[in-house]
Amino acid sequence: MQRKDFPGSPLGLRRVIEPAGALPQAAWRLDPSPQLWPDEARVRVDRLNLDAASFRQLTEAAAERSAGGGPGLAAALREAVLGIVAERGKMQNPVTGSGGMLTGVVEEVGPDSPLGLAPGDRIATLVSLSLTPLAISDGLARWDGRSEQVPCDGHAILFGRSIAAVLPDDLPVPLALAVLDVCGAPALTSRVVRQAAAGGDAPVVAILGAAGKSGSLSAVAARKAGARSVIGLVPAQGEADLLATAGLADQVVICDARDPAAVAASVRAAGGPAQVTVVCVDVPGCEGGAVLATADGGTVIFFSMATSFSAAALGAEGVAADITMLIGNGYVPGHAALALDLVRDEPGARRIFESRTAEGDGNGG
Amino acid sequence: MQRKDFPGSPLGLRRVIEPAGALPQAAWRLDPSPQLWPDEARVRVDRLNLDAASFRQLTEAAAERSAGGGPGLAAALREAVLGIVAERGKMQNPVTGSGGMLTGVVEEVGPDSPLGLAPGDRIATLVSLSLTPLAISDGLARWDGRSEQVPCDGHAILFGRSIAAVLPDDLPVPLALAVLDVCGAPALTSRVVRQAAAGGDAPVVAILGAAGKSGSLSAVAARKAGARSVIGLVPAQGEADLLATAGLADQVVICDARDPAAVAASVRAAGGPAQVTVVCVDVPGCEGGAVLATADGGTVIFFSMATSFSAAALGAEGVAADITMLIGNGYVPGHAALALDLVRDEPGARRIFESRTAEGDGNGG
Repeated sequence: MQRKDFPGSPLGLRRVIEPAGALPQAAWRLDPSPQLWPDEARVRVDRLNLDAASFRQLTEAAAERSAGGGPGLAAALREAVLGIVAERGKMQNPVTGSGGMLTGVVEEVGPDSPLGLAPGDRIATLVSLSLTPLAISDGLARWDGRSEQVPCDGHAILFGRSIAAVLPDDLPVPLALAVLDVCGAPALTSRVVRQAAAGGDAPVVAILGAAGKSGSLSAVAARKAGARSVIGLVPAQGEADLLATAGLADQVVICDARDPAAVAASVRAAGGPAQVTVVCVDVPGCEGGAVLATADGGTVIFFSMATSFSAAALGAEGVAADITMLIGNGYVPGHAALALDLVRDEPGARRIFESRTAEGDGNGG
Repeated sequence: MQRKDFPGSPLGLRRVIEPAGALPQAAWRLDPSPQLWPDEARVRVDRLNLDAASFRQLTEAAAERSAGGGPGLAAALREAVLGIVAERGKMQNPVTGSGGMLTGVVEEVGPDSPLGLAPGDRIATLVSLSLTPLAISDGLARWDGRSEQVPCDGHAILFGRSIAAVLPDDLPVPLALAVLDVCGAPALTSRVVRQAAAGGDAPVVAILGAAGKSGSLSAVAARKAGARSVIGLVPAQGEADLLATAGLADQVVICDARDPAAVAASVRAAGGPAQVTVVCVDVPGCEGGAVLATADGGTVIFFSMATSFSAAALGAEGVAADITMLIGNGYVPGHAALALDLVRDEPGARRIFESRTAEGDGNGG
């Protein structure tokens, strides 16, 4: 109904082959042909950055094929990714539903593209590969299958709302990529903490998974936005040492984020309950602890893709917790610049990223 | 760690048998013995109200057993519910994870119970059966298996934070139960609309599933809280007629909530985009439409238990939507009284409930 009145072009609806009417992310198959609509841009791809969940699943499946007398592991992985992209016109893992991001150089920009890009710009996409039309032309011959960073020649299409960040000159590409991968978390944390502080009382902020990539940047962002104190929860001594050395939290607590009573008790003992709790732990079962660690009237921000909607909703209701629970939207205006600046200004955060750029704890996408 | 410092009693941690440390809702098995801890209360149960998803699953499984030469359908259903309660000490469907609510009469109140109840009060629980210790003593002999309302004799335990509502004298019990089942939705909608209106501009509110129980009450709540206009989306003509006759929405639109472009176009054509969008449709796949129907800076409240956390998070990011997305917390202080008053004051809402009390579109729990 009224489809022709809908301004669907910037969302890429014209690239959806099936099912008709779906948004590109939910679609099974996209059209990756290189000819541009007026509001699109085309990128010459040089690297795919598969999200951690997808890379793990692909590796496990490839290892199984390989052990069963199939091709070698690297060949099996290349075949898997090439097969998905050929069939779907995008790199969206059909098992995990997730994608990742890419880097490349802008090749052509349609006259009506609102992205502000110019040919020659070296960029990273800030929208997921799971909605980005993609064609691969080199058979992924340079990928050894050992890392989720995939050298790749091909092209990708950016829609009017497919935001991208020009890669900075002053930071190594792997570092910048890792920061951009999680840049929504510090941006939303900053906004929520700033709003809470504007109410008069500077909030206590608890961060579950504070020594990870999204968690450490969220800790820095919370402090800059006016947190009274930042309590960082981590699962083990090694992480605690990393976080303490980096100096990003006022209190560092070792605690299993899946144990609700332990999380609540730990946060209380460290100066809580929290007015703002940020969940950056990518394992299931952290909803209860986050709810119990948060003061009445406070806010929980869930960034973990392992969050269960119903566990959060029923969990809060079940303990009569009058708290606001936010789904961590990966888009906040200015998020890329904010996150890159945090890493530039805070050597501790940079050290955590440099120690982790091979691990991948991002929200994926 | 620090477990002994944790004030876990009001959450019922002492009733958890396994696994140790879990909250009662996440636990596999609770202790339903009738002896009270000082902050507990015991209820003589007269009726279980299984949530819609659980009742559907139990009925399908019982029909299969029955068709395979097992007991009759009603007997198979009774056996299933009795078996779950005997094994788990609570009525939590192991397949759906959900429970429902119960009505009964308060039998004994511990000296430290903070619930404000007295023996003889006739109440409905506002926390889920999935966390409520329960023992059944009549074999469910009076249940014919045809309805999710289960006549039942037995007892249940309320913890310090297991809130309950005294049933009103002026409303039929089935109506009051149906209203209480969804009372979190209008309460949170009211709060969010009021906050948006306080900013100066009265918000346009779109409600997906506006002719259902939670949707219709949310429509009434939005209007009372200062919405500029209420746009009600429904899937079919019959629902549109019901909603139009009830007079709860300024615009009634027929639209498939799973079609993102259609939802966005419909809401725009009806005066949108919305500053507040409320999702009350209990089918999967409504995240994209809700995101696209909402103006930048606006808020989506997801009440549907069919909401996918990752579809919402990645969907908003994928279209660069700067919106706030709330997980619909079923608890807001005063929610029961607010919802009952809406039905008392608004004959249109009452008519919708009376036409629907056998259907069950609640958030379940």
